[in-house]
Amino acid sequence: MTRLFQKHYHPAGTAPGTLREVSLEQVALHGPATYCLARRDGGRWGKMDDIVAEAIPHDSADGPLYWLHVQGMPTPGELELLGERVGLHPLAQEDILNGGQRPKVERFDASLVVIMGIPDIDETEGLKLYQLTLFMGLNTVVSVMAEGMDPFPEVRRRLQERGGRALGEPDDLLYGLLDTAVDHAFPVLDSVGERLEEVETEILDCPTGTTLERLHGLKRELIMLRRYLWPTREVLNQLLRDHADLFTPDTRMWMRDVYDHAVQIMDLVESYREMTASLLDVYLSSMSHRLNASMRTLTIIATLFMPLTFIAGVYGMNFSHPTSPFAMPELNWYWGYPMVWGVMILAALGMIWMFRRMKWF
Amino acid sequence: MTRLFQKHYHPAGTAPGTLREVSLEQVALHGPATYCLARRDGGRWGKMDDIVAEAIPHDSADGPLYWLHVQGMPTPGELELLGERVGLHPLAQEDILNGGQRPKVERFDASLVVIMGIPDIDETEGLKLYQLTLFMGLNTVVSVMAEGMDPFPEVRRRLQERGGRALGEPDDLLYGLLDTAVDHAFPVLDSVGERLEEVETEILDCPTGTTLERLHGLKRELIMLRRYLWPTREVLNQLLRDHADLFTPDTRMWMRDVYDHAVQIMDLVESYREMTASLLDVYLSSMSHRLNASMRTLTIIATLFMPLTFIAGVYGMNFSHPTSPFAMPELNWYWGYPMVWGVMILAALGMIWMFRRMKWF
Amino acid sequence: MTRLFQKHYHPAGTAPGTLREVSLEQVALHGPATYCLARRDGGRWGKMDDIVAEAIPHDSADGPLYWLHVQGMPTPGELELLGERVGLHPLAQEDILNGGQRPKVERFDASLVVIMGIPDIDETEGLKLYQLTLFMGLNTVVSVMAEGMDPFPEVRRRLQERGGRALGEPDDLLYGLLDTAVDHAFPVLDSVGERLEEVETEILDCPTGTTLERLHGLKRELIMLRRYLWPTREVLNQLLRDHADLFTPDTRMWMRDVYDHAVQIMDLVESYREMTASLLDVYLSSMSHRLNASMRTLTIIATLFMPLTFIAGVYGMNFSHPTSPFAMPELNWYWGYPMVWGVMILAALGMIWMFRRMKWF
Amino acid sequence: MTRLFQKHYHPAGTAPGTLREVSLEQVALHGPATYCLARRDGGRWGKMDDIVAEAIPHDSADGPLYWLHVQGMPTPGELELLGERVGLHPLAQEDILNGGQRPKVERFDASLVVIMGIPDIDETEGLKLYQLTLFMGLNTVVSVMAEGMDPFPEVRRRLQERGGRALGEPDDLLYGLLDTAVDHAFPVLDSVGERLEEVETEILDCPTGTTLERLHGLKRELIMLRRYLWPTREVLNQLLRDHADLFTPDTRMWMRDVYDHAVQIMDLVESYREMTASLLDVYLSSMSHRLNASMRTLTIIATLFMPLTFIAGVYGMNFSHPTSPFAMPELNWYWGYPMVWGVMILAALGMIWMFRRMKWF
Amino acid sequence: MTRLFQKHYHPAGTAPGTLREVSLEQVALHGPATYCLARRDGGRWGKMDDIVAEAIPHDSADGPLYWLHVQGMPTPGELELLGERVGLHPLAQEDILNGGQRPKVERFDASLVVIMGIPDIDETEGLKLYQLTLFMGLNTVVSVMAEGMDPFPEVRRRLQERGGRALGEPDDLLYGLLDTAVDHAFPVLDSVGERLEEVETEILDCPTGTTLERLHGLKRELIMLRRYLWPTREVLNQLLRDHADLFTPDTRMWMRDVYDHAVQIMDLVESYREMTASLLDVYLSSMSHRLNASMRTLTIIATLFMPLTFIAGVYGMNFSHPTSPFAMPELNWYWGYPMVWGVMILAALGMIWMFRRMKWF
Repeated sequence: MTRLFQKHYHPAGTAPGTLREVSLEQVALHGPATYCLARRDGGRWGKMDDIVAEAIPHDSADGPLYWLHVQGMPTPGELELLGERVGLHPLAQEDILNGGQRPKVERFDASLVVIMGIPDIDETEGLKLYQLTLFMGLNTVVSVMAEGMDPFPEVRRRLQERGGRALGEPDDLLYGLLDTAVDHAFPVLDSVGERLEEVETEILDCPTGTTLERLHGLKRELIMLRRYLWPTREVLNQLLRDHADLFTPDTRMWMRDVYDHAVQIMDLVESYREMTASLLDVYLSSMSHRLNASMRTLTIIATLFMPLTFIAGVYGMNFSHPTSPFAMPELNWYWGYPMVWGVMILAALGMIWMFRRMKWF
Repeated sequence: MTRLFQKHYHPAGTAPGTLREVSLEQVALHGPATYCLARRDGGRWGKMDDIVAEAIPHDSADGPLYWLHVQGMPTPGELELLGERVGLHPLAQEDILNGGQRPKVERFDASLVVIMGIPDIDETEGLKLYQLTLFMGLNTVVSVMAEGMDPFPEVRRRLQERGGRALGEPDDLLYGLLDTAVDHAFPVLDSVGERLEEVETEILDCPTGTTLERLHGLKRELIMLRRYLWPTREVLNQLLRDHADLFTPDTRMWMRDVYDHAVQIMDLVESYREMTASLLDVYLSSMSHRLNASMRTLTIIATLFMPLTFIAGVYGMNFSHPTSPFAMPELNWYWGYPMVWGVMILAALGMIWMFRRMKWF
Repeated sequence: MTRLFQKHYHPAGTAPGTLREVSLEQVALHGPATYCLARRDGGRWGKMDDIVAEAIPHDSADGPLYWLHVQGMPTPGELELLGERVGLHPLAQEDILNGGQRPKVERFDASLVVIMGIPDIDETEGLKLYQLTLFMGLNTVVSVMAEGMDPFPEVRRRLQERGGRALGEPDDLLYGLLDTAVDHAFPVLDSVGERLEEVETEILDCPTGTTLERLHGLKRELIMLRRYLWPTREVLNQLLRDHADLFTPDTRMWMRDVYDHAVQIMDLVESYREMTASLLDVYLSSMSHRLNASMRTLTIIATLFMPLTFIAGVYGMNFSHPTSPFAMPELNWYWGYPMVWGVMILAALGMIWMFRRMKWF
Repeated sequence: MTRLFQKHYHPAGTAPGTLREVSLEQVALHGPATYCLARRDGGRWGKMDDIVAEAIPHDSADGPLYWLHVQGMPTPGELELLGERVGLHPLAQEDILNGGQRPKVERFDASLVVIMGIPDIDETEGLKLYQLTLFMGLNTVVSVMAEGMDPFPEVRRRLQERGGRALGEPDDLLYGLLDTAVDHAFPVLDSVGERLEEVETEILDCPTGTTLERLHGLKRELIMLRRYLWPTREVLNQLLRDHADLFTPDTRMWMRDVYDHAVQIMDLVESYREMTASLLDVYLSSMSHRLNASMRTLTIIATLFMPLTFIAGVYGMNFSHPTSPFAMPELNWYWGYPMVWGVMILAALGMIWMFRRMKWF
Repeated sequence: MTRLFQKHYHPAGTAPGTLREVSLEQVALHGPATYCLARRDGGRWGKMDDIVAEAIPHDSADGPLYWLHVQGMPTPGELELLGERVGLHPLAQEDILNGGQRPKVERFDASLVVIMGIPDIDETEGLKLYQLTLFMGLNTVVSVMAEGMDPFPEVRRRLQERGGRALGEPDDLLYGLLDTAVDHAFPVLDSVGERLEEVETEILDCPTGTTLERLHGLKRELIMLRRYLWPTREVLNQLLRDHADLFTPDTRMWMRDVYDHAVQIMDLVESYREMTASLLDVYLSSMSHRLNASMRTLTIIATLFMPLTFIAGVYGMNFSHPTSPFAMPELNWYWGYPMVWGVMILAALGMIWMFRRMKWF
């Protein structure tokens, strides 16, 4: 199971802005960073190429629009190079290396850094959140995905084929990437929703010992999603409210659409959370109902047979008649045995009548 | 049971504003879209006709007031035509095709798009929410109901008969449609309330195994209603607060009445939610109370008869007197058998006295 | 039990502002409306008379101050007459006829309409909320109580006797009526509080099967009260904040006192709600505690007697010595029987020692 | 137990500002009011004297600073005298007589009335809240404590001994009294905290039947404290925010310290409330755990001995061999009896092995 | 276990600003205060020395930047000396001596006092919160840690080695200390998170009697952490919002980073709290599930064997044939014994079939 909290922190007292050395195991895990550069020239997007870090172009107000996508964990050296070429602030560099940051938006003069999460669901490991860092400079947009899979193949394909919105300005391109990042939550929610309905069916029909573990697993995922989604919504709200000057009115309208998606996702997560709470109540109540049913069965059986067994036991005692006239003379009566059965049947019927009156069955 | 979450989303990375092709099964389900046009001329509403999409009039500031109601799922081509004739924004077109949007209000220059939900309750399938899209242009109001039944037959009848408010201006007509849309929630709440009181009676009188499933079903519906009602209230609030310039003071006062209805509906939903919580508590407590009752019955029975059965068992042992003087000489006493009964009755009475003292019955 | 939700709504699509015809059964229930008019002249309140609807005076800025109290359900015709004479808006007329509105304040030019609730508790039917509509025009205050009992006999008596504040201006008179309306909640809360403490005593001492039903009944009433009290507080706050221009500074100070009362009542309701939650916890825990006690008794009894009964059963088997030397030779031993008893007593003591060590009693 | 709600209200409709006659029993309970007057003259506090109501000095802007402490319930006549001498508003007079008001601050022109609560904990009766009314006029501060013990002996002692801050201005003196009033909550919270930890130890170690009653009692006290502390915090906040003009900058800084104390107390109450909730969970879970343990013991015992008792019962049946060759020939076998024991021991071992595999012990 | 509430308060009525005498046991516990002074001169930090209280330099606008770290509880005399030299306000002095204050920020003219908590986790004693007081004057920063361990060895080392940010201005230095103080929460949360996951594994696999005590212990720690973290976040927010004038724009940006950390920590605490709630639900449900399983086992066993034991008991009764023709003639039948077994086996099979149909196993 994914841990709720990953140790992505310096020891307290470490100089802030210190770039942690990327460990060998991280590189082994995510592979070295690859740099994919797209250049918009003459009103159209050119071919996209994988480049080396040293080929990253300088960001300038009158240059062409560049989109640089970094996939994999860059080394501190590469990050510093990136910082120098496009103006990525040291704090943002630190955030990229450390990962696991809370979604946030940070403005450094004219540049904007947005940190988001890309949720991803995996059959074996469950929900994972990967950090996406977006940077918008004068004429360059950088997206860094240090861990996890590439979220933008579809956007690249579209830009190449020139379908949909052109995304021909930095703010427009940033919008396009944010839109894609937020929409990555839908299939995750879809998976959660489907499993939730499976669990619902299971609980309503026939809960087993693992039903509750599955429900707990879903709750855990919803806690994680919520921790990421609240600040995501806030980030989009801040972009619209505090940094509106960086966006054209047209882009702002499209950004509101992204914001609406984030709110809709948040609503769904809240509804799912309420559903898990309601299902837990149903589970506990059905457990309680079954316990009652078992208990009644047991009580009925015990109440029926204990007195009968006692009566049979009495007549199994070794008192015998000749010694004492009181010692079970009925053992020797002609109608003794049927009479005893009569008493037993009457006792049983009386008990059953009582249970009926108490509406036990 | 209706799913909480319908898959109405593009794959992440799809170009925004892309119109999804309407699938054949959707058309089969909802039928092709029909267009009903009403025209207000010379201070009165004319006859309403079903028209074809190509006959949709252009929206102009000095033309007559039109109300176009679209029932059924339009094709992307028809939507684009609609967009061209009355100025429906591509994002709104996308929202109509995708459905399942969160209630929201969007302003595009002089036109206003309001997305609402029409709740509908169905014997077999339970609660359903259908999306209603309202558009107000310069002199045209368009209402689109891609799925579900027509919510406005009554309004049409009234306009024809010229009863009630004339709804002779675009803002007034929009108000009339919003009022009708919001009021559609009352019969739904009425149904929920009635079933809630049935469940209440059932829980207080004699809960069965399905009682809790019904309560859970009601909770589910309340979760759905709440997810739709919160943003609905917000939409009406936004219309009054942010877009007040589009409404005359008189219409604003009537709009506040619609807003009050939405708040009242929301209050009811919250009260119902509290009721379901309280009923669940009652259910669990009554289960607990019954379990206690069964348990006590069982304990009393077992505590009464187990010692007696043991005593009977003892005298059924095959020890016999001649061999050993200690071996149950009472078997041969004259008063032996009555004495054993005496002991057993005393034991039983002692136990009953003890239970009484512990206030078990 | 009172329903949480009364069907006071038009079918969706009904023209807003339509006055519902008062049904005969409503008139039979509440009686025809009576009109009691008070007139302030020359600095003192004159005699109050029951008048007919046609005698309602016109509201004018330079006329004397009138207080008209309408008790009982007026007919639509009477309401229209009232609207014409004092300027009651059609929406307010509709609200009076429909009843069951959420407390609200509505301003129509110079006139103010306040809708409140008067809670009333009834031995047999429990809590009821009746709607009070207050109207303040230029020089006329109208109070309409379409259902329920007259809340203002005390105010009338006081005005006649010229005790307390004179209430000689419209705003002052409105304050006096609001103050009385809000204070009607105190005896209701007192009744709830008393029954809550009865239930508390019952739960702490000896809960029965109906204890929880009573607690649920109280919760239901608190849900209803809360739904009415939140907007009531908001209404008073709005009067102080948004409509302060209609009140003199002195009256505003007295209005703040009414607002404080409403807040205090709200606080009490919230405290009572917390109490019901806490009592439910105590109830469930005491049920759980009792179940444990029963269970232990049963377990102790069963654990003591089952092995003993088994031992007795063994010696009741019809194996006999001569056939086999292993077949219970102790049946024929001199000390056989006492030995068996010794074993049984030791087993019992061992079990008791074990239960003691587990701190079961 | 103290009632959550005391009947301190007029019947609805009573003229506001009416002074309730102090009943004889109240006087008997609290004794007649005593008036203790302190006068600051020439930069120092003079001797404090008990005076009669008629000797209360008039409040004037150029007179010396007076502090009048009223202990015990004044009669309406005395209150009116006080109102006339220092300018106490009739509404404030009513609040003093009625008691049980929500903490609030009210400004009447230049004078300020603050109503607070003094919590007091009592071995036998539990938590009590007494109302403290503070009045600050031009040069007079009045504190009225109609019920409960005198909260200011320490302040008086300090003023006489001229230790600590001089409290030589009305605002400074008001601060000093507020500070003392707020700090009275600390020992109460200390008592609650201590008992909470006792209950915690009890629940973790060995809960008894009364543990939960004690927890419920603590919850009740926390509900009461919270209802009083929320508005207290609000009162202090209002003093700092809305009435800052009445305080010197230096006093404002000290007032912020009082406000911090109130917030800290509120935080503690909230933490305690969370603790009670957590303890209840632990209690219920430990009950559930014990029930499981008892149940397993019972099931193990029953499952072990019931089959054995049945086997013994079978061999106690009076079927005998000669009649039928199938009728328990083993009764007459040489190894019959050991074989039966073998079967019984094997059955027992099998059951124990099964319980072990199910991890029941 | 650490108490939630430490008695760090004066008796109500004590003169505010009174410095409590440090008790001997406190000095024995924490040792006398040590004073470590760092001086920045010529653009670099000089050597740090332990000094005596009398050597504390005066704070002046044109002097060099000093950082004084006080470790251990200073005496009132030393605090007064500190107050005189650097301008520490008496209220802040009181807060240092009393300890246990709520995190807060207080501005006295040009100086700023920030009170924070340093959480520390200890194997044996659990979570502890120690108060850190930070003071920023004109050119002096004082940090006082009256209890607990020194939180700044790493910062001192870094300043000496001149690594990372220079922290060469008072605001910058204050930021550095705040950053370190906030980051001290990460290892504590890490410890909580690890233990939470241990408890999670335990609950999902095999809960024992102490599992819930551990969960309760974690909840207790989370309640404490939360009480400290909410105001900490608020303090950082206030520094950024209300006291922004004391910080350079560059420092403000780094401060926002600290604020982000505090928010991230708060988010984690909230997620952990939700996790504990969810785990408790899982625990209770699994208890309920097990109880059901035990109950069913018991019911099945009892239902199987009670009728069989009864049948065996019947044939153990001492009725015999010759006396009565009805008295168990089957005892003497040739197939009697097999027939009885047949009946018993059929009864058992019937019961098993019934349990199967009820899906009990």
